Amino acid sequence: MSNAIIFYDIPSTLPHKAWSANTWKARLALNYKGIPYNTVWLEYPEIEPLSKKLGALPTRNKPDGSPLYTLPLIHDLSTGTVLSDSDKIAVYLDATYPDTPRLMPTGTVGMHFAFEDAVLALLFPLWRYLNTPTHAILNPASEAYFRTVQEATFGMKVEEMNPIGDVDAREWQKVKDSFGRMDSWIRANGQGIKYFMGDSHCYADLWLSAYLVSVKLVLPEKWEEMKLWHDGRWARLSESVAKYETVR
Amino acid sequence: MSNAIIFYDIPSTLPHKAWSANTWKARLALNYKGIPYNTVWLEYPEIEPLSKKLGALPTRNKPDGSPLYTLPLIHDLSTGTVLSDSDKIAVYLDATYPDTPRLMPTGTVGMHFAFEDAVLALLFPLWRYLNTPTHAILNPASEAYFRTVQEATFGMKVEEMNPIGDVDAREWQKVKDSFGRMDSWIRANGQGIKYFMGDSHCYADLWLSAYLVSVKLVLPEKWEEMKLWHDGRWARLSESVAKYETVR
Repeated sequence: MSNAIIFYDIPSTLPHKAWSANTWKARLALNYKGIPYNTVWLEYPEIEPLSKKLGALPTRNKPDGSPLYTLPLIHDLSTGTVLSDSDKIAVYLDATYPDTPRLMPTGTVGMHFAFEDAVLALLFPLWRYLNTPTHAILNPASEAYFRTVQEATFGMKVEEMNPIGDVDAREWQKVKDSFGRMDSWIRANGQGIKYFMGDSHCYADLWLSAYLVSVKLVLPEKWEEMKLWHDGRWARLSESVAKYETVR
Repeated sequence: MSNAIIFYDIPSTLPHKAWSANTWKARLALNYKGIPYNTVWLEYPEIEPLSKKLGALPTRNKPDGSPLYTLPLIHDLSTGTVLSDSDKIAVYLDATYPDTPRLMPTGTVGMHFAFEDAVLALLFPLWRYLNTPTHAILNPASEAYFRTVQEATFGMKVEEMNPIGDVDAREWQKVKDSFGRMDSWIRANGQGIKYFMGDSHCYADLWLSAYLVSVKLVLPEKWEEMKLWHDGRWARLSESVAKYETVR
């Protein structure tokens, strides 16, 4: 099984290159399960041609209705499977490698998908913070694509998205409230319970941690604040997942 | 343990009186677990004084910041516990009556709470449909309260909320899309899987079914359409839960 999986990711100018929360979801899953893989780096304009060449399906549609191809994408040479979409990859890895630690405990795939919908809505205020510094670390071949997509979504220049002053105070409170909501879910599990499904990691913990990796990389000052939120909940989650944050 | 729990609910003019999706969540949970209870009916203006008398906590705040007391509320005479909020009641019943069928499988309380946040957002388009016919079945002592709250929320007369014509076509499609999203979560569990956590009920199934009970009661024509959605998914869910829809 050694190096049986090719894992496609988008590079940055950072030393370890990896930056995308969406691809980190799948990489954290691979590392958590201990499945060997090799990363191949694709700039944004290379994603669609490579996906089509391998026969990967588009994950959603662009605003104009045409198919959108995205990373993460894996090519599992041991089974011939080509798969994009971090959720589908997680489900595939649990099914195909049953002897590795399970990402989604039996019966919880649908609950994980509901969890993700709820968290995506809560994380919306975070994008404006992430986009400006993320754009700044992309290679020239990817930054134009990133700019076009984000500026169409937010209706402002990517350099101007980062909230400052009063806007920062208001928007950062929204981010904190969102994490407060997630904290309340974990607390509902019972006194002292650490993670979304108990005291062991599940995919939901890795999935949220993928965003924390992004925050740590491009918003180090905000991360220092976030570490203090909710009795250090997110600092401890991040520390517990750090061993899966290697880039192969 | 016979009749050890007093269950407080809001009556309507319907033969079985029960109509509220929120109280149905707790009643379905009690019936699913087979825990005996007796219903005591409270009109809206009676909820706050009775809650205070029993020592129940408010479940949230009114728009003016003052505490809001809500049903369901249970008084478990065997333990002395007084508890409002359907989620807290479900967690309490699982903890206090471990020999009855479990509502939330071990480790899934937090995931259930995330599920509920996701579904509440998806169900938002349904309220306008439910409010007009619900208002019409309330007793005089409750209808004024219901009118005040709903009209403040939606900015329109309760008699005018029910979408008609083009608005109906647009809003009902939103409701269908929301159920399509939930259908996608269940399908992610695997081929032929029936419910949110597999082929056995969990609290998520009962929780959504509480809204289906409301739809069946006050929107029977819309329910006929809904039964055909997603290969009959919701008709089968409703049939599977029907045995818990008794009012004691």
